Amino acid sequence: MKVGILGGGQLGRMLALAGVPLGFSFRFLDPAEDAPVDGLGERTVAEFSDLEACAKLAAECDVVTFEFENVPAGTVEHLAQSKAVFPGATALRAAQDRVAEKRLFEALGIPVPPFAAVDTLEELAAAIAKVGVPAVVKTRREGYDGRGQRVVREAEAVGRVWGELGGAAPSAALLVESFVPFDRELSILAVRGRNGDIAFYPLVENEHSDGILRVSRAPAERVDGRLQERAESYARGILERLDYVGVVALELFQVGDRLLANEMAPRVHNSGHWTIEGAETSQFENHLRAIAGLPLGSTEARGFSTMVNLIGTAPELSALLAVPGAHVHLYGKEARAGRKLGHVTVVDASRQGCEGRARQVLGVVEAEPSGPLDPKGEGLDSRDPSR
Amino acid sequence: MKVGILGGGQLGRMLALAGVPLGFSFRFLDPAEDAPVDGLGERTVAEFSDLEACAKLAAECDVVTFEFENVPAGTVEHLAQSKAVFPGATALRAAQDRVAEKRLFEALGIPVPPFAAVDTLEELAAAIAKVGVPAVVKTRREGYDGRGQRVVREAEAVGRVWGELGGAAPSAALLVESFVPFDRELSILAVRGRNGDIAFYPLVENEHSDGILRVSRAPAERVDGRLQERAESYARGILERLDYVGVVALELFQVGDRLLANEMAPRVHNSGHWTIEGAETSQFENHLRAIAGLPLGSTEARGFSTMVNLIGTAPELSALLAVPGAHVHLYGKEARAGRKLGHVTVVDASRQGCEGRARQVLGVVEAEPSGPLDPKGEGLDSRDPSR
Repeated sequence: MKVGILGGGQLGRMLALAGVPLGFSFRFLDPAEDAPVDGLGERTVAEFSDLEACAKLAAECDVVTFEFENVPAGTVEHLAQSKAVFPGATALRAAQDRVAEKRLFEALGIPVPPFAAVDTLEELAAAIAKVGVPAVVKTRREGYDGRGQRVVREAEAVGRVWGELGGAAPSAALLVESFVPFDRELSILAVRGRNGDIAFYPLVENEHSDGILRVSRAPAERVDGRLQERAESYARGILERLDYVGVVALELFQVGDRLLANEMAPRVHNSGHWTIEGAETSQFENHLRAIAGLPLGSTEARGFSTMVNLIGTAPELSALLAVPGAHVHLYGKEARAGRKLGHVTVVDASRQGCEGRARQVLGVVEAEPSGPLDPKGEGLDSRDPSR
Repeated sequence: MKVGILGGGQLGRMLALAGVPLGFSFRFLDPAEDAPVDGLGERTVAEFSDLEACAKLAAECDVVTFEFENVPAGTVEHLAQSKAVFPGATALRAAQDRVAEKRLFEALGIPVPPFAAVDTLEELAAAIAKVGVPAVVKTRREGYDGRGQRVVREAEAVGRVWGELGGAAPSAALLVESFVPFDRELSILAVRGRNGDIAFYPLVENEHSDGILRVSRAPAERVDGRLQERAESYARGILERLDYVGVVALELFQVGDRLLANEMAPRVHNSGHWTIEGAETSQFENHLRAIAGLPLGSTEARGFSTMVNLIGTAPELSALLAVPGAHVHLYGKEARAGRKLGHVTVVDASRQGCEGRARQVLGVVEAEPSGPLDPKGEGLDSRDPSR
């Protein structure tokens, strides 16, 4: 099975590492000069909008997928005329536009925070007046890891935020939503096969800071069967509505016993990296099984896992490996502020044991002074696969 | 860290898959036209005796290792003059000559079956008369997976066996040993770091047929602390005597509560493939940690594992993946009688659960009519990385 992957970041790298043992080979397409997938398969250096280059890649593969959700949906649509591409353009389009995404959630009965689509400074001011402060303003497109997002804490800041996100343009596609005073952030990963089979991973608890995922704990603590079921029913709704094939991630806010959908990612996801060691079948292998039309693998957790992202700078490898049970994953990227350079997963049969190991990893990570986060998300290529 | 690997078989492939997440890159050398490592790093197509090609590889790497124990020890010696090569030539020489190996075991107080080195038909007849029948006759060099081995069940067969193993030559380097009526075959894998730290995996029980490993179960059943300790003390003796760095495998016969050493492999080993999913740190990662001078990882088992080799032919991937918990590893090799094409590992928290899954895997494997085993081990390139 020859798999074409649009995008050459760490998600592509981990997909390839999961697929080689299955006998799969990989071809990648990514515009970057160097990419984490390099060395794991041939790579075409081209823009995702380069239909000719993308079609050439697809022609050489049995199935095509993407590991970067800002691939133009038009490209996926074009390729789908002649080749199986999973997940499809419909899913990609829904995930690329935060307003379409929220409307999809609403249509499926998945609770979301109050939101409004705005295109002008006047509409922004009116929307914020309506949902109240604090409010979150996001670009409709292309944001990730906290980029293209601002929290408005006072109505007076509207003009500044408009300037930052809308630029000097007379109109800009933004989403305003009420800031949810959530108890915690959770995510659920699900996978759907070509035959419609669906499997769910257990809910994961995520810690973000500056909009970037720092730590995931799986399975999340204090999750009763009802909460897990509710999350599954939301994910199932999305998968079935979109006739989705592959892994999807749904980020949720928990408020009391309610779950509000924040956003979905139509791909393998950082909050699922723990599955490499912590689940029977990793999200990467299950995504490949799904798109290849193979039986899905068990999504059951093996003990308790904590994943810690390495952001901006990475500590000495020897210091990380000295932590008992540390599974280190480096992505082969140059250090840069705010960049995901790798992650470390620890697993243990008990939650307490896992947390003890995680504390040791965090100790090593925090001893290494992390580069300052780029507060505006500027100077970073929007194609940077740091997600 | 750039690692040079002499040998391009599945062991090299799995070393690379374990090393990429640590940020390692790989360069390989192997004379075969196609090799399982292809696609995981540049490969030089050259003979292992080609000192110039080997030295060029070494010059481009930080450390060199081998995944094939029939690499000429002279090559390793040559490379070691200018580059760190682990394990060293001393270990390789000891493992390449079955008589030297047995003498090493004896010198370390590790019990071995009665044996004799023979060079002529007359010596062979005399040795068999002495150790009695059944006896096992092996070439001193280059045998593996049952190749270069014959069981002599009656003294009259001596002439035939001489012809098969010694050829028409007037002298041939053979080893005769008494056939051990063992209760079972075990192996222990151990790893020693550059700083002398040693870690042991739990004893594994192995099932061979036609001289080829079929199934490994880990940790082996009915192993008390004393048996494990005894195996560890034997492995420790070898590691320390040889100033060994990396993973070593020691194959043992259990007879009552005695352990007799059969042979050692100066490399990662088929009976350790279960460690990918079944141990905290795989043998592949630990070999790399060792040769790179990094801290060793925990060798603790995670539950119970059974590994089933795919030999000669491989069943449909979808049939294997339909078995709950099946971890499939294909090596990208063409099917050929007696060839190791891949393996499947199942893991479970209980031995019973693991065995249930293993039975399902064996059911799938046995439903696929395996190619006939080449009874004489002929027609197979001795460089065939089927070990």
